[in-house]
Amino acid sequence: MKIVDVRTSLFRVPLREAMSDARHGAHTHFELVTVTIAVADGSTGTGYTYTGGKGGHAIYAIVEHEMAPFLIGRDAADIDGIYDDLWWHIHYVGRGGITAFATSAVDIALWDLKGRREGKALWQLAGGASKTARAYRGGIDLNFPLPQLLANVEGYLAAGFNAVKIKVGQPTLAQDVERVRAVRELVGPDVTFMVDANYGFDVPRAIAAAQAFTPFDIHWFEEPIEPDDYLGHAEIAHATGVPLAMGENLHTLHEFGYALAQAELSFIQPDASNCGGITGWLRAAKLFGPSGIPVCSHGMQELHVSLVAGFPSDGWVEAHSFDIDQYTTRPLVLENAYAVAPGEPGTGVTFDWIRLEPHRVS
Amino acid sequence: MKIVDVRTSLFRVPLREAMSDARHGAHTHFELVTVTIAVADGSTGTGYTYTGGKGGHAIYAIVEHEMAPFLIGRDAADIDGIYDDLWWHIHYVGRGGITAFATSAVDIALWDLKGRREGKALWQLAGGASKTARAYRGGIDLNFPLPQLLANVEGYLAAGFNAVKIKVGQPTLAQDVERVRAVRELVGPDVTFMVDANYGFDVPRAIAAAQAFTPFDIHWFEEPIEPDDYLGHAEIAHATGVPLAMGENLHTLHEFGYALAQAELSFIQPDASNCGGITGWLRAAKLFGPSGIPVCSHGMQELHVSLVAGFPSDGWVEAHSFDIDQYTTRPLVLENAYAVAPGEPGTGVTFDWIRLEPHRVS
Repeated sequence: MKIVDVRTSLFRVPLREAMSDARHGAHTHFELVTVTIAVADGSTGTGYTYTGGKGGHAIYAIVEHEMAPFLIGRDAADIDGIYDDLWWHIHYVGRGGITAFATSAVDIALWDLKGRREGKALWQLAGGASKTARAYRGGIDLNFPLPQLLANVEGYLAAGFNAVKIKVGQPTLAQDVERVRAVRELVGPDVTFMVDANYGFDVPRAIAAAQAFTPFDIHWFEEPIEPDDYLGHAEIAHATGVPLAMGENLHTLHEFGYALAQAELSFIQPDASNCGGITGWLRAAKLFGPSGIPVCSHGMQELHVSLVAGFPSDGWVEAHSFDIDQYTTRPLVLENAYAVAPGEPGTGVTFDWIRLEPHRVS
Repeated sequence: MKIVDVRTSLFRVPLREAMSDARHGAHTHFELVTVTIAVADGSTGTGYTYTGGKGGHAIYAIVEHEMAPFLIGRDAADIDGIYDDLWWHIHYVGRGGITAFATSAVDIALWDLKGRREGKALWQLAGGASKTARAYRGGIDLNFPLPQLLANVEGYLAAGFNAVKIKVGQPTLAQDVERVRAVRELVGPDVTFMVDANYGFDVPRAIAAAQAFTPFDIHWFEEPIEPDDYLGHAEIAHATGVPLAMGENLHTLHEFGYALAQAELSFIQPDASNCGGITGWLRAAKLFGPSGIPVCSHGMQELHVSLVAGFPSDGWVEAHSFDIDQYTTRPLVLENAYAVAPGEPGTGVTFDWIRLEPHRVS
């Protein structure tokens, strides 16, 4: 099943409105890099990755110049072998960052191909534990005035979610507390409610914030500080007892290992678009499995629903505000507030190329 | 002193012969990405980074698409501010890998500009401790049959070096020991002799190798295992007492911090081409300074000579087999086996653009 062709595309897709968080400024677009791999009999698989608006050209360049020539002639069924050899192939400029995003897109394409050829859906390939998963809607709303924030959260509930997340990291803690209180009052005691700081705090400020959020029953406090500071996370957890979540910025199994050993997390959130695709996500999930820490996801809900549902762990799927799923033929499906994995063979993510075409860059 | 222009070039330069190490296969070329930054009064500074042959297109793309637009209009004198803001600007796809190489090229250009405008040489800007530094020649010679390896080492001594490094990681330890013994016999007891495994071993094999090399007075054992495995390094150091060196694969201050705290290194080898340029190298050097661990370098001798000499630490400059310095107007200068920093303002690295031009890719 030799690989005979690798097609790469880069799209720059506008968001419906400008969205901001504590560290990345205003988001106006997301970038989507798609990779379609064809084998000798004409079967194809499509994978992808995304960014918050920067780095897409470099991801495209790595796939085109370094990965496509490496892939041609390889056996597409040898997903683990390709993954490991690709790690070493671009190791000197790799181990995270741009190459991790590019590897992810390639790896997802290989899994899509595998599922289509074997007639299996991704939730089955990922373990088959369940076809549904807990889901929450994550807002990128730090710049929204309070009335807009609340209207946004109401929209999430109206759409069928019973769990919501907002950004924190306002200029003062009092402002953050005001917003957290207002959201909790709006949604009532039965809705699950998380906050996400995108590492806008340092350890002392994060501890103060966690303590100030305590009355509002926060399900988790996400990325309070820089993702690289594993021991700082543990310090916050020990000082406050707050459940911590992170993972969207961990790109290698080494990093997941340090997070597991040192960060005292309560939830892990690998993102298959930047931790090495489905292979990378499953390796991270298996690493965390024995700890009982729920394996969740970040972004890219149309694909992660299958991983979080299929893998035997009671994780949460994030329905992210970068609505990539609106550019597929099957936007995220909710039933009784649970996300439902697609049943078709492969990843179940089929892009609406006609809708994407106006946004093509390369 | 507003930045008005950023010019990026990518060259792919053939090596004189194919060279291999334990992990990166055969090297036939190096890539060179140069960045020239101009300010409003017409002053310019040139920085650069290099790779072992892969990733250059992506580095070029990051500089062109993400960094150049960010730099235009900024004050070129605010090097620390640009460095920190750039970190956050590309953080989501950054923190190592391709973006670290691109940041390095940009940062070196800003330091070159600063030195030229202030009339100061880089060894002065880096601390002014000395204008000379200990130097050794590092071979990429794992694929060389023994006679060629020995002829190569003899050539290093003839060129004026009194310290040499070879690659290890042959199929069997006996073969490695045979080569190490032969080199020690060739150079005699007074020449400093290091070995470099490019993480070709795991911990048990590295311990066995370190013990087998003991009779041959190895000055350091470089990168015995994967650079991400800090505690594994400590295990090797504790088990054998061998002096360990690494750093060429550490891209962030977080990583240098973990290496300092956990890896029990005897030498640290930051590479300004991939750890954030001169700013990144100096921050790593200052982090290690109080430990007394000598701050050395990897590759790019024509620039590192100024950093290793100027910074107050008795480090070693590696004269690397990727002879970038042969494409500058001042290849590395040795006097009594010491490397001598250039005295001219700026980095003292002036490319021979006419020699490079035939190798231009972008």
